[in-house]
Amino acid sequence: MSRQCSIGLLATDHVTLRDAENWGYDFITAPITRPSFENTLTEMGSEEYKIWKDCPLFDSKDINPTLTACARKVVAFYPNWLELDSSVNDIRIRSELAFKQQVEYITHCGVRGGIFPKLCQQVENTARCLNSVLTPHSPQICVRVRLGEKAYHWKRWNKLRTMTEYNPRLGVALEITPHLPKDTLHLWLSEPVRILILSLDLFINNKHGYPVMTKDHQQFVKTMMHVLSPDIILAGTLPERAADCCQYIKFLNRKLPELTKFEESAWGFHDVLQVPLQPLAHHLENQFYETFEKDPIKYEQYEKAIFQALVDRIEDLSDEITTIGVVGAGRGPLVNCCLRASERSQRKIHVYAIEKNPHAYVTLQNMKATVWGDNVSLVFSDMRTWKPDIKYDILVSELLGSFGDNELSPECLDGAQRFLKESGISIPSSYTTSIAPLSSNRIYTNIMARKEPMRFETPYVVMFHQTCLLDSPQDLWTFHHPNKKDIPFGLDPINNLHNTQYQKTQFSIRHDCLMHGIAGYFDCTLYNDVTISIHPDTHSPGMFSWFPIFFPLQNPIHLTPESIVTVCFWRLTDQKKVWYEWSVSVNDKDKETHVSMVHNAKGKSYSMSFVV
Amino acid sequence: MSRQCSIGLLATDHVTLRDAENWGYDFITAPITRPSFENTLTEMGSEEYKIWKDCPLFDSKDINPTLTACARKVVAFYPNWLELDSSVNDIRIRSELAFKQQVEYITHCGVRGGIFPKLCQQVENTARCLNSVLTPHSPQICVRVRLGEKAYHWKRWNKLRTMTEYNPRLGVALEITPHLPKDTLHLWLSEPVRILILSLDLFINNKHGYPVMTKDHQQFVKTMMHVLSPDIILAGTLPERAADCCQYIKFLNRKLPELTKFEESAWGFHDVLQVPLQPLAHHLENQFYETFEKDPIKYEQYEKAIFQALVDRIEDLSDEITTIGVVGAGRGPLVNCCLRASERSQRKIHVYAIEKNPHAYVTLQNMKATVWGDNVSLVFSDMRTWKPDIKYDILVSELLGSFGDNELSPECLDGAQRFLKESGISIPSSYTTSIAPLSSNRIYTNIMARKEPMRFETPYVVMFHQTCLLDSPQDLWTFHHPNKKDIPFGLDPINNLHNTQYQKTQFSIRHDCLMHGIAGYFDCTLYNDVTISIHPDTHSPGMFSWFPIFFPLQNPIHLTPESIVTVCFWRLTDQKKVWYEWSVSVNDKDKETHVSMVHNAKGKSYSMSFVV
Repeated sequence: MSRQCSIGLLATDHVTLRDAENWGYDFITAPITRPSFENTLTEMGSEEYKIWKDCPLFDSKDINPTLTACARKVVAFYPNWLELDSSVNDIRIRSELAFKQQVEYITHCGVRGGIFPKLCQQVENTARCLNSVLTPHSPQICVRVRLGEKAYHWKRWNKLRTMTEYNPRLGVALEITPHLPKDTLHLWLSEPVRILILSLDLFINNKHGYPVMTKDHQQFVKTMMHVLSPDIILAGTLPERAADCCQYIKFLNRKLPELTKFEESAWGFHDVLQVPLQPLAHHLENQFYETFEKDPIKYEQYEKAIFQALVDRIEDLSDEITTIGVVGAGRGPLVNCCLRASERSQRKIHVYAIEKNPHAYVTLQNMKATVWGDNVSLVFSDMRTWKPDIKYDILVSELLGSFGDNELSPECLDGAQRFLKESGISIPSSYTTSIAPLSSNRIYTNIMARKEPMRFETPYVVMFHQTCLLDSPQDLWTFHHPNKKDIPFGLDPINNLHNTQYQKTQFSIRHDCLMHGIAGYFDCTLYNDVTISIHPDTHSPGMFSWFPIFFPLQNPIHLTPESIVTVCFWRLTDQKKVWYEWSVSVNDKDKETHVSMVHNAKGKSYSMSFVV
Repeated sequence: MSRQCSIGLLATDHVTLRDAENWGYDFITAPITRPSFENTLTEMGSEEYKIWKDCPLFDSKDINPTLTACARKVVAFYPNWLELDSSVNDIRIRSELAFKQQVEYITHCGVRGGIFPKLCQQVENTARCLNSVLTPHSPQICVRVRLGEKAYHWKRWNKLRTMTEYNPRLGVALEITPHLPKDTLHLWLSEPVRILILSLDLFINNKHGYPVMTKDHQQFVKTMMHVLSPDIILAGTLPERAADCCQYIKFLNRKLPELTKFEESAWGFHDVLQVPLQPLAHHLENQFYETFEKDPIKYEQYEKAIFQALVDRIEDLSDEITTIGVVGAGRGPLVNCCLRASERSQRKIHVYAIEKNPHAYVTLQNMKATVWGDNVSLVFSDMRTWKPDIKYDILVSELLGSFGDNELSPECLDGAQRFLKESGISIPSSYTTSIAPLSSNRIYTNIMARKEPMRFETPYVVMFHQTCLLDSPQDLWTFHHPNKKDIPFGLDPINNLHNTQYQKTQFSIRHDCLMHGIAGYFDCTLYNDVTISIHPDTHSPGMFSWFPIFFPLQNPIHLTPESIVTVCFWRLTDQKKVWYEWSVSVNDKDKETHVSMVHNAKGKSYSMSFVV
């Protein structure tokens, strides 16, 4: 769970690694070659040049000796004079060979990493060269990008990344500028920023004469530390201030806000792809029950909802018994909620716990025998097929997935509501699914690394971290329970068509950015004003049972400040399964500039089976 | 080699298939349902509607009986009232169910095909529905698209096609309009137009009172017949004119220009993907020699070039013997060219035929023994490693591929020029590679049908047919021989870097269209003004040895009338192989709207080995 950062010093010739370490630094940066190397190349005779082209060999005088002396503590700088996109053939070819020669040399040395000094307006051949030298054995390359007012820095980086097919060994060395472009800062949180370069001019003296940064800079650096844990390089620092600056950065790093319980529990899951659970088709394993039962918020809310429902139904001091069906009781947490709510409200209840998982049912039997006693009856059955003798006053269930209905809560409750009284209450009473366009270099590369041919047509449950929402979420659709409109009272539905959905939503984009897919959330009304939510605007604080869901796009889309993104989303069904399909189109000033295919057509890559 | 077309009649209720057949037609079109079906649906009570939703069943009175009576001679029309993209849920869902019901019914009947009547402004749900009902067993669906002045008809079709991932069972029924939008007509040649709809108002009476079309319409219909062989449907024809109109279309079809020899030989190869030959790495098989030697033009041009070179070198009546090295002699066609040129020019020659393929060498031995005699010496060797005693006056080779240098002619001739005299001549003396952006639904779907994961990063040799060039070709680079600039005289090159190339070219687009990849060509100067070429502007008439080459794009790009397409093309090399990489970016009014990855990076999918 470490967010500790390594700090490096952009060293001049007069500063050694030992000096830097004495001042508290973890590493230094150093140029790979001396300026003499450029002269050596340009002054070569044509014969020498031909020989060098055939077998590039350094003269030791042209090489920085620091590289071999303390390689693991050095980040190497490629020279500024490389012109990989020169329109002059000779310069371009010489630059390419010299670049490759240096990559191979620092690979031999085993340095920590390399920084490519700049991106020019033309990046095509640079992209090809960087991609071609990066192997699993070569030090990763971070491209120096200036955080600037203008989007063209980001655009060049984006072009480079796209042309190299998201080479995972290519990152960004982001150079912080004195002026922070506030409205686009958050976009960098979804990029592979592996190094932050902070120069002297970012520091001001505080009243004690120590170097500090402005509040805005502090905040941005701390956010980057929290989300991306980059190495930090101090540049242009005077030797007499080097130690103080380093101390200050360490101080900022120590002062990161403490992790919440939720953040702690989620730390190992950042941007990790999880295949959504399908508890209807596959029995949950014990560990999942174990984990989910620990949620400090969810069952509090359920208890509140049941409490209010009981109080609303039954007069004070009445002896009437409220019958509650807990459908999908699992190992019993909702039964406990019912019993606690009954006690607190002093309303009498009888609970019927219905569960189809034979293994969880063992735990239910133990609970009844040792804790619950006569107030609880157990039913071993699928809620969609069970034929009870009586009807219940309240139906309680927890069948939601990250996208609301994606664990087939609507289909299950369609069956279960047969044994709800006509005036009965369902807890939850409704849930709404919402989506937003998302950018995340990391999630996209994680999907690329999977081998399944249809990996981009499957949703993933993901704890978002190195991500950026490109607009506020919009609601897609809502399911209400009980559903008296579509289903004959007390009967099974004829078919599942009433649970299909189709919605088109639009998003407005304000910046140049890359859309990698669609983030999905739900919010749910349990009863009246008692809710649970993972919608970013209303997320139940501390509730950790659900991470959001992510629907990828096969081809990321470059959006601009004028883009209107239209997302079409379908929830579809046949006799056996339910699935989602999604498609995105983009308009720029009334011109349609992009259309995606319909992802997961006919559920070919991902579907949820509801066959009993 | 049939370009014969089937002609159908859009029948009214009063016209039977027998009538149509009597008038000369091959099939009729017919609506699937009667108008009563729409009423049946809208007037259903909610209970009936629920039952119909569960199990859609036709009442026989709502169905057109023609469908079962003569299914294979019927193209079925889906009704106009289907609103698959209605914003009203009920209408949309009812339309979808009714559509599916009809698809299943005509699949049962086994009709020839179906026509979907129109695309509305919104096509998202239409796209999803069409895609979801098309199975390998259902009749293909052609979407009726009006050929209009405005690009929006094409754009809707393009959106539909993109969203359905180029479903091969989805095509276009193109309805010809009285006014022909001349500057965009050619774009339809790269689309899957499987039906042409011609209505009565396209016909005028000639002086004999027979229906004919204008010259422009005749031309367009004939071009479509030649390239796409669509079915043709005559609509709105009065019964008394039906026979004459049909005769007229048959007349046009018979009057297609005769196929050239080249077209005849290429007929089976239209838009078929062939993996480029690699004669350096793999010995050609006998059948390839056999086919290529039949080219009526290529060897004529070689003979002309050798003739002129001999005449330029040697005075009339001189006894001087010109030594000619034929490198890569194969089965000897170029040796024959030399001998014919010698005879015609009355210049004495001695030919050294060098060949590395042991099997072709057997034929060479036979030729020497039975035909050539003492004027020809045979050498069994790779031209790049052979150490001859003498140097030649002329070096003749035929090492070009569709892309010029893609069969490693530069690398081979680098080695062979060691035994060319310093004043010697190479035939060919130079060749230039050129490219153009190309649209072709058919080639793209052919590539999609391949299983290799990197099928979009490999070039294919293709006889273009259902294609459209989106701008004129531009030259990329030229190789000259002998190459005295880069290679020490009489020696081997130090390495192959001098044969690398990098070029950026730009194309201007004038219409909305879809770019699927890059067409590649070469043109070659054999000697002075004697050339061979497959460049569209200068194609040697009748020469059939080379089809063009095609470099695909993984993601087709939607271009607009303002698009500037920039193609980056590289020819790259290491110690063992040569390969191409390519990338495309698009600017619309100075805004970069698209960047592709670099295709075939590091030669990962396709390369040409030159290891001796």
